[in-house]
Amino acid sequence: MEKFFSVEDVDELDKVVQEALSLKANPHEHSELGKHKMLGLVFLNPSLRTRLSTQKAAINLGMDVMVMNMDKDGWALETQDGVVMNGTTVEHIREAAAVMGEYCDILGLRSFPGLKDRELDYSEDLFNKFVKFCGVPVVSLESATRHPLQSLTDLITITEHKKVQKPKVVLAWAPHIKALPQAVPNSFSEWMCKAQEQGLVEFTVAHPVGYELHEDFTKGATIVNDLDAALDGADFVYVKNWSSYRDYGKVFPVLQNWMLDNQKLKLTNDAKVMHCLPVRRDLELASEILDGPNSLVIKEASNRVWAAQVVLKRMLAKLK
Amino acid sequence: MEKFFSVEDVDELDKVVQEALSLKANPHEHSELGKHKMLGLVFLNPSLRTRLSTQKAAINLGMDVMVMNMDKDGWALETQDGVVMNGTTVEHIREAAAVMGEYCDILGLRSFPGLKDRELDYSEDLFNKFVKFCGVPVVSLESATRHPLQSLTDLITITEHKKVQKPKVVLAWAPHIKALPQAVPNSFSEWMCKAQEQGLVEFTVAHPVGYELHEDFTKGATIVNDLDAALDGADFVYVKNWSSYRDYGKVFPVLQNWMLDNQKLKLTNDAKVMHCLPVRRDLELASEILDGPNSLVIKEASNRVWAAQVVLKRMLAKLK
Amino acid sequence: MEKFFSVEDVDELDKVVQEALSLKANPHEHSELGKHKMLGLVFLNPSLRTRLSTQKAAINLGMDVMVMNMDKDGWALETQDGVVMNGTTVEHIREAAAVMGEYCDILGLRSFPGLKDRELDYSEDLFNKFVKFCGVPVVSLESATRHPLQSLTDLITITEHKKVQKPKVVLAWAPHIKALPQAVPNSFSEWMCKAQEQGLVEFTVAHPVGYELHEDFTKGATIVNDLDAALDGADFVYVKNWSSYRDYGKVFPVLQNWMLDNQKLKLTNDAKVMHCLPVRRDLELASEILDGPNSLVIKEASNRVWAAQVVLKRMLAKLK
Repeated sequence: MEKFFSVEDVDELDKVVQEALSLKANPHEHSELGKHKMLGLVFLNPSLRTRLSTQKAAINLGMDVMVMNMDKDGWALETQDGVVMNGTTVEHIREAAAVMGEYCDILGLRSFPGLKDRELDYSEDLFNKFVKFCGVPVVSLESATRHPLQSLTDLITITEHKKVQKPKVVLAWAPHIKALPQAVPNSFSEWMCKAQEQGLVEFTVAHPVGYELHEDFTKGATIVNDLDAALDGADFVYVKNWSSYRDYGKVFPVLQNWMLDNQKLKLTNDAKVMHCLPVRRDLELASEILDGPNSLVIKEASNRVWAAQVVLKRMLAKLK
Repeated sequence: MEKFFSVEDVDELDKVVQEALSLKANPHEHSELGKHKMLGLVFLNPSLRTRLSTQKAAINLGMDVMVMNMDKDGWALETQDGVVMNGTTVEHIREAAAVMGEYCDILGLRSFPGLKDRELDYSEDLFNKFVKFCGVPVVSLESATRHPLQSLTDLITITEHKKVQKPKVVLAWAPHIKALPQAVPNSFSEWMCKAQEQGLVEFTVAHPVGYELHEDFTKGATIVNDLDAALDGADFVYVKNWSSYRDYGKVFPVLQNWMLDNQKLKLTNDAKVMHCLPVRRDLELASEILDGPNSLVIKEASNRVWAAQVVLKRMLAKLK
Repeated sequence: MEKFFSVEDVDELDKVVQEALSLKANPHEHSELGKHKMLGLVFLNPSLRTRLSTQKAAINLGMDVMVMNMDKDGWALETQDGVVMNGTTVEHIREAAAVMGEYCDILGLRSFPGLKDRELDYSEDLFNKFVKFCGVPVVSLESATRHPLQSLTDLITITEHKKVQKPKVVLAWAPHIKALPQAVPNSFSEWMCKAQEQGLVEFTVAHPVGYELHEDFTKGATIVNDLDAALDGADFVYVKNWSSYRDYGKVFPVLQNWMLDNQKLKLTNDAKVMHCLPVRRDLELASEILDGPNSLVIKEASNRVWAAQVVLKRMLAKLK
């Protein structure tokens, strides 16, 4: 595993989930594997869950960790070639990535999209250049278009809590006041589509017209524009806002009610409710659900550790 | 010890002091106790001594430590229930605290008061909610109304340097240009009042009229409005500024000289002088004292490690 | 080694280089030396390479590390005595340094010059006071006038890559859009002058008229104002911008082309090209060189670990 960037970097989903659950049962079993190995976590954007859970996973494996918060340092990186660097960028990603690769055995990178230039964001230019120039395995801590540690976590959580062999999983768009990236829904969707292919789930995406995700991420999914219809018989509802891909990065008014509450939950098969957090209460998702018995959001966040740990474990095994 | 928030969380003061001094004599004696245990330190406000000393204490006990500086991330927390989160707060304390509790075995929290709404500050709403929602033991790293690690440190320092069985300890208000919280003087006062009850000290509080602390913190203390009178026969003078509790968060002119200098020190019983730091030289306290033989401020700061270590040790012992 | 501040703190240069290369060959050989020893890294200015490489070096030696980013905390330090602290500084360096010295066995300090008051910057007032008041060994992580870990790194890198016994090393001024400190060139120059004395290199400094370094740093060096002449026969070219020492902190237009590119490189003896990074591509140094076979910049950055590790190892040995 040279990089962990998308669902393509994992073959058998159920196998990686079982390996993660085995780590959850015995967190310190492989605490010698990471001895004298350094993980560098590079944040170009803020992080709470990702930073803490990945740090903890690395420590469980016996690794050392160094964290670089480059967003707050004003250490602006140049990513384009052929630019005379007489502006605000102080270092080129060619040097910055290569240097970090010298100090670390594995790197993690978080970088949000600008949400202005769709082609640039969806080229994953920054992440790909970082991988190319750093020369060591890289874990995505959320890139412009994907958040794979979150999606692996979500699959682990669904596996733990499913009551039927092949549960119905619904990704449900939710309202927000800000324009958010498509990274989490893209990623969840591509993981669920693959899980559907491998017979693990049935997958539906529900969103208002205009909020279509890029079709690369939703192959095989049932896509509907009616939340109530989607909720019918659902075993898991994954609530998440995203901005428009078509009218890139835009947010426009939605007339129907897309916020999940207890009344809508009645339409489901007593579904478990998921969200990657942070969640804006009573805007994206009703408090009554978050504080009720159907919410999995804290257990889901807790599982972030095991998703990170299985990925790091596999990378460490290849380093040896 | 489910939380360490006030003097109420410790029974016999002398016993905890002696345990701290034993750790000071053998810092690494319990370095196996914290193995595979994670301490999370959450700062909503800046910190130097508290951060470093608590980190060091945890490391001495064999713990791993993760630090979250949430003040600088703009990761504004919502603390009120029933709020539609369509404003500037990005995550509710219910989720944020619960998630951190999933990743850590013990949490520390620093949060200053707003100094605008007295009732809100003195309800300790934020600290209490953090304790309630995180589900793990919590150490206060200074809350709206108390700074218990500082006060335990102060008692340790007094115990080490006292020349008589029951020294006279004076908490002396000092000038400042900013409106500071009452947390340090409240806390010092409630610890000294309990120490007085347990026969360890005699305790006097001296401040100008208008700077009365809330009576819950000064029960049994001698309270005077004349610094010179208070200093008479003092063995320890604890210098500290605070803003008004009565006219909440306000600062008003004080005509007399309340800054301790060598001349005023002559009124004492060759008193040792303490301050929690940071101190503004020649505004709060004369340089001639800070640079002279009577100052304990550096030794006091040094003792912060042992206060934190004894608290963490007791919490770890209960986790087992 | 009570401090590591300048080339004066090392006697035999070749010996320290060989010791560093031995650590590079066996990074974890002394991983017991730093057990239960704390390194504190204090940054008053941003850092990427210095922070990561020094952290890694300490971890290789078995030390624990605490990092304090004081630039971002608004924790402004007062450095002058006799000041009534009723302004913006919140703590005096006397207390801040002393307290950090209580928590740490070795401290590192980064502090850039203001580039406004030459006498103040060149007095190294802040660094010297930090050393004086903290009471423990101090490693400079770059001070107002020197960057010794960088210079030791550079000597290590030259030693590794030299093809002749006594290579010709040229420090070549380069263009920039900002006014940069003289710390790196001063430091490189004083290390190369000593290396020249000890028969290790031949050293030339090339810069436009007006960019003379203080003569204390260039004793014995050949100084020229013609880049092409300097490059003739060079085995190593060390590219770096700096602002004027004479017209202190100023930058003025330079008519000739001082940016090293492949055409200029032809004047050399197939020289290896060095830079401390971050480098502004095609402003300071041509991309074609950075991406070509003559660039050592990444290997140089990588060697920062071994420079830091040999310094820390020597300090730890004296602590025992």
